[in-house]
Amino acid sequence: MSSIAYVNGAYTPLEDARVSILDRGFLFADGVYEVAAVIDGRLIDNEAHLARLERSLAELRLESPVTMAEMVEIERALVTRNGITEGLVYLQVTRGAADRDFSFPRGVRPTLVAFAQKKNILASPAAQTGVKVITVPDLRWSRRDIKSVALLAQVLAKQAATEAGCQEAWMVDADGFVTEGSSSTAFIITRAGVIVTRPNSSAILPGCTRRAVMALAAEQRLSVEERAFSVDEAKAAAEAFLTSASNLVLPVVEIDGSPIGAGVPGDSAKRLRALYLDFARATAV
Amino acid sequence: MSSIAYVNGAYTPLEDARVSILDRGFLFADGVYEVAAVIDGRLIDNEAHLARLERSLAELRLESPVTMAEMVEIERALVTRNGITEGLVYLQVTRGAADRDFSFPRGVRPTLVAFAQKKNILASPAAQTGVKVITVPDLRWSRRDIKSVALLAQVLAKQAATEAGCQEAWMVDADGFVTEGSSSTAFIITRAGVIVTRPNSSAILPGCTRRAVMALAAEQRLSVEERAFSVDEAKAAAEAFLTSASNLVLPVVEIDGSPIGAGVPGDSAKRLRALYLDFARATAV
Repeated sequence: MSSIAYVNGAYTPLEDARVSILDRGFLFADGVYEVAAVIDGRLIDNEAHLARLERSLAELRLESPVTMAEMVEIERALVTRNGITEGLVYLQVTRGAADRDFSFPRGVRPTLVAFAQKKNILASPAAQTGVKVITVPDLRWSRRDIKSVALLAQVLAKQAATEAGCQEAWMVDADGFVTEGSSSTAFIITRAGVIVTRPNSSAILPGCTRRAVMALAAEQRLSVEERAFSVDEAKAAAEAFLTSASNLVLPVVEIDGSPIGAGVPGDSAKRLRALYLDFARATAV
Repeated sequence: MSSIAYVNGAYTPLEDARVSILDRGFLFADGVYEVAAVIDGRLIDNEAHLARLERSLAELRLESPVTMAEMVEIERALVTRNGITEGLVYLQVTRGAADRDFSFPRGVRPTLVAFAQKKNILASPAAQTGVKVITVPDLRWSRRDIKSVALLAQVLAKQAATEAGCQEAWMVDADGFVTEGSSSTAFIITRAGVIVTRPNSSAILPGCTRRAVMALAAEQRLSVEERAFSVDEAKAAAEAFLTSASNLVLPVVEIDGSPIGAGVPGDSAKRLRALYLDFARATAV
């Protein structure tokens, strides 16, 4: 069965879903995106994703061609038309197709594309085994708070992880501090039981799942500290984990070949995953 | 008359020239490009551009779907089919269309697209008047030597220039030194007559026109120094200019509102433009 995508107002088989070679998403990475998870056929924490989309658009002075209410309808239509029970919905807005020129074009309608992917989220094998992480230099630009499609550094980081037999790469700034994963937020839990993650700034993407997990941890009266941590501190941590929209919460069991804690998924990470799942299901739309 | 583009082996009207929404150029900026100028219907300094394309491809472990000899044939075909006397040819190679996943896909054929634009190059009004430049922080990633399509920072820089009534933005690193223009190489000429431009490194793109102009200057026994310069030094310079494939050599007459030298195109910049034009025509293919 071919999947159905959305391109500028029309639902179309994915193999026919195309954009102009003059689209500024293709020529300049002049666009932003979001990914929302789907569980039980419903969108998880979607309001947070659309709020972040609006923020990314505003930072780039890009206008969405549809309202956020219409965006939700498109997301839901893709879930339904593709029969997605578990998976994700991807949205991308670019500055549209225009004669190639770096400056913003005038009077050009932005491009909106969207598609859905099936993916095992609840029964993710990685949730059972935990994931291995390598660290790589963070090569990215200075506005990492914008969820743009200029993802080449993240592609190279993830590819390095894959080639090292790992599932994620944690990116490290020149000062030795971890920024975040190539497509996830990085957390450690110290031996004193403090959950540590980097504060939001232009150095990282403000994670939606990060925010929800931190709120849940606070509700549980767990100790949470927002500060940068080094690779050495991470290797010496009691536990480590990552969060992302499509991976929820995943225990990290190894960093650069060093086992974290006992080298198996930590109890706190497993508990946070369970808490997040309850939250996700309760708030799914 | 509609223009003709090239997409993965086929020549097609530009309005029908499309790529999949799953193309990694569109989703991840996972691609590289080149632009070569056309004068008198012939490609200028094209060998240097294709050598740089091969370097960019190798740095990203991307394979060109055609040989460089075939690439020249495609460029020439676009010049001919579009009746380009003066203008440019644009080439872009991406890692192809595949299910969205950050890591490199296996067994996927890279995408090659190309198109041509008409543009006044010889009789450029900017060559007569000179251009105005603003300076902006350089927000880009750490591998600026790769000519990738992850150009969002350059788009924002150029847009800032446009809104300031300028034609180019010179990007400045946190250390206060100019790196380069958003789509050009930055040069100054000191009051002692020394042509200064930043040495090639991962901080800048190795400009093809930069290289040719420096060789021509050396042939003329002009003094050339490769070192970084600050915005203040640039403002105090006798002359300034920029180089790029489609602008050749353009005098810079103002930086952040400060006139450079007499505030009109400098004699040395005009001479270098003339020298470059002679070189370009002599080596055009």
